[in-house]
Amino acid sequence: MQVINDLLGYKNIKIYQDTDMFSFSLDSVLLPNFITLNKNIHNILDIGTGNAPIPLILSTKTKANIIGIEIQKEVSILAEKSVKLNKLENQIKIINADINEIKDEFAINSFDVIICNPPFFEINETSNLNHKEYKTIARHEVKLNIKDICVIAKKLLKNSGVLGIVHRPERLVDILKSMRENNIEPKRIRFVHPKKGENANIVLVEGVLNGKKGLKVISPLVSHLSNGDYTEEIKKYFE
Amino acid sequence: MQVINDLLGYKNIKIYQDTDMFSFSLDSVLLPNFITLNKNIHNILDIGTGNAPIPLILSTKTKANIIGIEIQKEVSILAEKSVKLNKLENQIKIINADINEIKDEFAINSFDVIICNPPFFEINETSNLNHKEYKTIARHEVKLNIKDICVIAKKLLKNSGVLGIVHRPERLVDILKSMRENNIEPKRIRFVHPKKGENANIVLVEGVLNGKKGLKVISPLVSHLSNGDYTEEIKKYFE
Repeated sequence: MQVINDLLGYKNIKIYQDTDMFSFSLDSVLLPNFITLNKNIHNILDIGTGNAPIPLILSTKTKANIIGIEIQKEVSILAEKSVKLNKLENQIKIINADINEIKDEFAINSFDVIICNPPFFEINETSNLNHKEYKTIARHEVKLNIKDICVIAKKLLKNSGVLGIVHRPERLVDILKSMRENNIEPKRIRFVHPKKGENANIVLVEGVLNGKKGLKVISPLVSHLSNGDYTEEIKKYFE
Repeated sequence: MQVINDLLGYKNIKIYQDTDMFSFSLDSVLLPNFITLNKNIHNILDIGTGNAPIPLILSTKTKANIIGIEIQKEVSILAEKSVKLNKLENQIKIINADINEIKDEFAINSFDVIICNPPFFEINETSNLNHKEYKTIARHEVKLNIKDICVIAKKLLKNSGVLGIVHRPERLVDILKSMRENNIEPKRIRFVHPKKGENANIVLVEGVLNGKKGLKVISPLVSHLSNGDYTEEIKKYFE
């Protein structure tokens, strides 16, 4: 079922969702709030944009041009509808394509920021692939994995450009190793814990192309109170 | 000046310190409290044991035999004096040697746990090496680096044996990458933040030889209150 939602009330931005496909998650709100933005950023690429929550949120924070790539046609149509609904056609461009197939069509070293909320699960013999293809591609590394993202970022980021990823802490070693192997030096990490005292369930990582070594692990974020409500820090993202 | 201190009152353990060399730090208290111990652990190796705070604390938690290796003769003498003072000669053996030179003298796959509070700083052209040799070797990777530790652990740990390291978060990528490259899978990480809201200044990492992927980032530890006192969780380690 297709519905129009407030982007959790995000700065009056509206977003089309389709409950048969998938809805945007907290990950997509955390990442654009984590990434380092400044006035010198002109071009942003969002890989696997889904129904475009990240470009929509970024539009409230930067004047940069944003390209969102989405492999699934029906999802990309939702993204385009949301862009039009918010009158952001001049800032956000949605492309329905497989980034691995079209990456050579972008100019080398042309993006200041690449951002990605990728599929989280590795594929292996025991993978319990979701039967709905929409969710399989969004959740499992069928079409895009961590290494792909780092290889693309190495090629398309400007020197000192920033790669921002949201992922599961279980995959942290894969992320840091892939970044380093592609000359993207991890510079900032933030962990999100669902409740105080619990293991982290989300990690936000920012790397810099050809950056110097020097990782900072910033103060963690706790997303929920013991009663299940969002904490004040999370609520701020929706004001 | 040589002095005998309580190991911060740790379970009545006493420790010899020499204020001209270096004193044990919070790192050495956190690591043996972080590492996973059980009744099946019989042999523990502490690389770079200093004046032996880690073996002394471990002796309150396990009956396993503990070998502490210390490259600096004067420091190893302090360590031995503390072992005798606490009547722990039957459990703790101090060896004055360079682990890189004597690693082949240990039986392959003979340790259940290897633990290390290593030098933190990389050596490069701009390294501001401390003029006191004691501190230089303890703090800078002159004689032992992260890769050395992982290579030694790969060789000397039993299958599924545990490597525990305390380090600076700045070096997290080096640690995780070196572990993975030596078949030691990072399984548990805990960050320590000096105060609430501040960046982490200590990281505790536990890896398992030939372990399955599946990192857990456990709830962080805050070491100090805003007034500079230790937090309750840190105080517990000294009761």
